[in-house]
Amino acid sequence: MLVERFRQNPLITPQAIAPSREGFEVIGTFNPGAFEFNGRVGLLVRVAERPVNREPGTVPIPVFHTAVHPPGTRLISLRRDDPKWRFTMCIVQPRGPDSALHSYLTNLSHLRFAWSEDGRVFQFDDGPAGTLWPQGECEAFGIEDPRVTQVGRLYLITYTAVSPRGICVALTTTVDFHLFAHHGFILPPENKNACFFPQKVRDEYLLLHRPSGGWCRPGIWMARSPDLIHWGGHQFVAGPRRGAWDSTRIGVGPPPVRTTEGWVVIYHGSGPRGYCVGAMLLDLEEPARVIARSEVPIMTAEADYEKNGFIGDVVFCNGLVERPDGELWLYYGGADTVTAGARCRVRDILDSLKQA
Amino acid sequence: MLVERFRQNPLITPQAIAPSREGFEVIGTFNPGAFEFNGRVGLLVRVAERPVNREPGTVPIPVFHTAVHPPGTRLISLRRDDPKWRFTMCIVQPRGPDSALHSYLTNLSHLRFAWSEDGRVFQFDDGPAGTLWPQGECEAFGIEDPRVTQVGRLYLITYTAVSPRGICVALTTTVDFHLFAHHGFILPPENKNACFFPQKVRDEYLLLHRPSGGWCRPGIWMARSPDLIHWGGHQFVAGPRRGAWDSTRIGVGPPPVRTTEGWVVIYHGSGPRGYCVGAMLLDLEEPARVIARSEVPIMTAEADYEKNGFIGDVVFCNGLVERPDGELWLYYGGADTVTAGARCRVRDILDSLKQA
Repeated sequence: MLVERFRQNPLITPQAIAPSREGFEVIGTFNPGAFEFNGRVGLLVRVAERPVNREPGTVPIPVFHTAVHPPGTRLISLRRDDPKWRFTMCIVQPRGPDSALHSYLTNLSHLRFAWSEDGRVFQFDDGPAGTLWPQGECEAFGIEDPRVTQVGRLYLITYTAVSPRGICVALTTTVDFHLFAHHGFILPPENKNACFFPQKVRDEYLLLHRPSGGWCRPGIWMARSPDLIHWGGHQFVAGPRRGAWDSTRIGVGPPPVRTTEGWVVIYHGSGPRGYCVGAMLLDLEEPARVIARSEVPIMTAEADYEKNGFIGDVVFCNGLVERPDGELWLYYGGADTVTAGARCRVRDILDSLKQA
Repeated sequence: MLVERFRQNPLITPQAIAPSREGFEVIGTFNPGAFEFNGRVGLLVRVAERPVNREPGTVPIPVFHTAVHPPGTRLISLRRDDPKWRFTMCIVQPRGPDSALHSYLTNLSHLRFAWSEDGRVFQFDDGPAGTLWPQGECEAFGIEDPRVTQVGRLYLITYTAVSPRGICVALTTTVDFHLFAHHGFILPPENKNACFFPQKVRDEYLLLHRPSGGWCRPGIWMARSPDLIHWGGHQFVAGPRRGAWDSTRIGVGPPPVRTTEGWVVIYHGSGPRGYCVGAMLLDLEEPARVIARSEVPIMTAEADYEKNGFIGDVVFCNGLVERPDGELWLYYGGADTVTAGARCRVRDILDSLKQA
C-alpha cells in the first residue's frame, strides 16, 4: 500500500477544543499545515466554528469584525424564508441579480497551533501565540487551509482569506512561533491553495498557487519572487483532466519535496470520487514543467472519518513532514471535520509516478 | 461641459487598417493606450479581427498559435446547431457541465502603434516594430486594452491576455518603441485593467488592477512592487456601487494623474447606462484610500460612434496624455469599434469631485 494511515486516526477532532466564545460550536479541526520545530511536530489547524442556532427559521451568520472594540465575531441573522437567499450547509448565496448582495459562509475559521512529540498525539497550544485570528475586512469570513514551509530558519505561513471582497492568499512569517510578521496579501482574489518551495530554484523563490474564476478553470500556477513578498512571472503548471479522478479542480497541498528526480508535489483533485490526494513530479530546474502525474489517486476517502462529516468523501492534504530515510508523514483533513495522518515513502510515490 | 470631444472624432476606424491576413476583416480599432514620445502622441490601439464567415451554419473561431511554424492565426469551425455551444456575438460558451470544454472568443485582438503630430490625426505604424502580436499559449485568444505608463525614460505597457487558461495581465517595456522586453504575467488570472502609477509613492511602485471571479466582484485593487515585475501587498481600493452608474463593474483606465490634492484616476464603470467614464481622487501618500468619486459619469455614450457599433453604449478610456496648463487629452474606445478623443481640464475634474 502506497500510503499507510496512522492507527491513532483521527488525530484531532472538534471535541478536542472549546469554542472561542459562548453560543458557538466547533464543527471542524481539519486541513492542517505541518512542520518540525525544535524537535517537535507542529500543526497549524483550521478550526471552524458556527453559532448554535437557537431561533428556528433563521440562519445565524458569523462575521469577524476588526474595526470595532473589542475585535471579534458578530452575528448576522438571515430568515430562512427570505426569497433573496439560497441556503446550503456551507454558503448563503444571493438568488437574484442584486449586485449589492454578496455570499456568506455559515461558519468561520481561525488557525490554531497544536504540538506533538511523536507526530501522533497532539496538544493544542492555549497560549497567547497559539492562535492566528482573522484581521481586517478582507478576512471577515475567516482564514483557512494554511501551508507552512520552512526556508532556512524562517517559517512561511500562507493561508486563504475569505471576505465579501473575494478569496485571496495572505502571508505570515515567524522564526519562533511567538512573534509573527504579517505581510498582507501576496496574491489577489480569486486565489487559494498557495504553497512555497522550501528552497530557491535558480536563485528565485517559487510559489505554487491556484487561481480560479471567470475563464480560469481551477488549476495550478507557479510564480517567482526575489523576496517572498512580491510575485511575478506567473505560469500555468497543470489543470483538471477530463475523465480523470481530478476532473473538476486541483490545487497544491503541502510544500514540494526535493528528490534527485524532481520535485514531488502532493496535490488534491476533486472529481467523481470526491476530494482525493494525488502526486505530480515537477522538473528540478524548471518546476513549471510537469514530468508525471498520478493516474490514480494515492489516497481516496475510505475511512469512516473521511467518508462522513461536515462534507463527506474528502481527503485534503496540506501538511507534510519529511522524516529520515525518505519517509513522509502526511497530515490531512478528513470530511472537512477532523485531522488525520498517514505515512508513505517518497520512493514509492516516485515509482508510482514512473508507472503513470 | 467637463469633457469636450475632439471635432475630428472618430479618430481611427476599422477602415483605416488592412486585415492581417486574407479572409479576415477588421471589426475594431479601439481602447488605445496613449503616451508622448519624441514630441509626438502615440497610441497603442487594440485591433480586433474576425474571419469573414463564408459557410452558413458555422461560426469560425480564430486562435493564435505560437507553437507552430509560422506562428499565426488558425481557424476552428463550430456548427451553429451544435447543442454543446451557446453563441453570442463575442463569445462561444459551452452549455453543459463538460469540464473539458472552454469558452472561445469570436474575434482576436492584437495591438498596433499609431502616431500623430497633433494628437488628432493618427497614422498606423506599418514597420516591423509597429505591432505587438500574441505570444504563447496564454495569449491564444488575443491581447487587449493596453495601458502605457511612462516612468522616467521607460515606457511600461500592460495588456490583457486571453486564453482558455484565463484572463491575465502581461507586461512589456520599451525605451524606444523599437525593441521591446517581455516580462510575462505580472498578475495571475482572473485579472485585467491594470495600470501603473507614473512614479514611485513612498519608494514603491504601485499598480491598480481589476481582479474578478468567484466571490470577488469586479473592482479596483492596488499592488506594490520594488521592481515593477514582482507584486505584493494587494489591497482593495473600490468596488461597484449599488444603484449608481457604476453598479456592475469598475476598472481603472489610463495612468493616474498627480495633483497637489491627490491622484486623479479616470476609470470605467458599467451599469444601467452601459460603460461610462468617471473619476476618483486617491490619497497622495496612501493611494488605496479613496477621497472622492464621481456621483455622475464624466462621459457617457452620446455620439453615434459611441452608441452604435460592435457593442453599443460604450465609452472606455484607457489612454491619457497630460498637456501643458493642466489640460488632459483622453483617448477612448467608442462602442468597442472606434478610437475617439476628448479634452478636459484636471482642475474641472477635481472640482466635480469636490461637489461629489
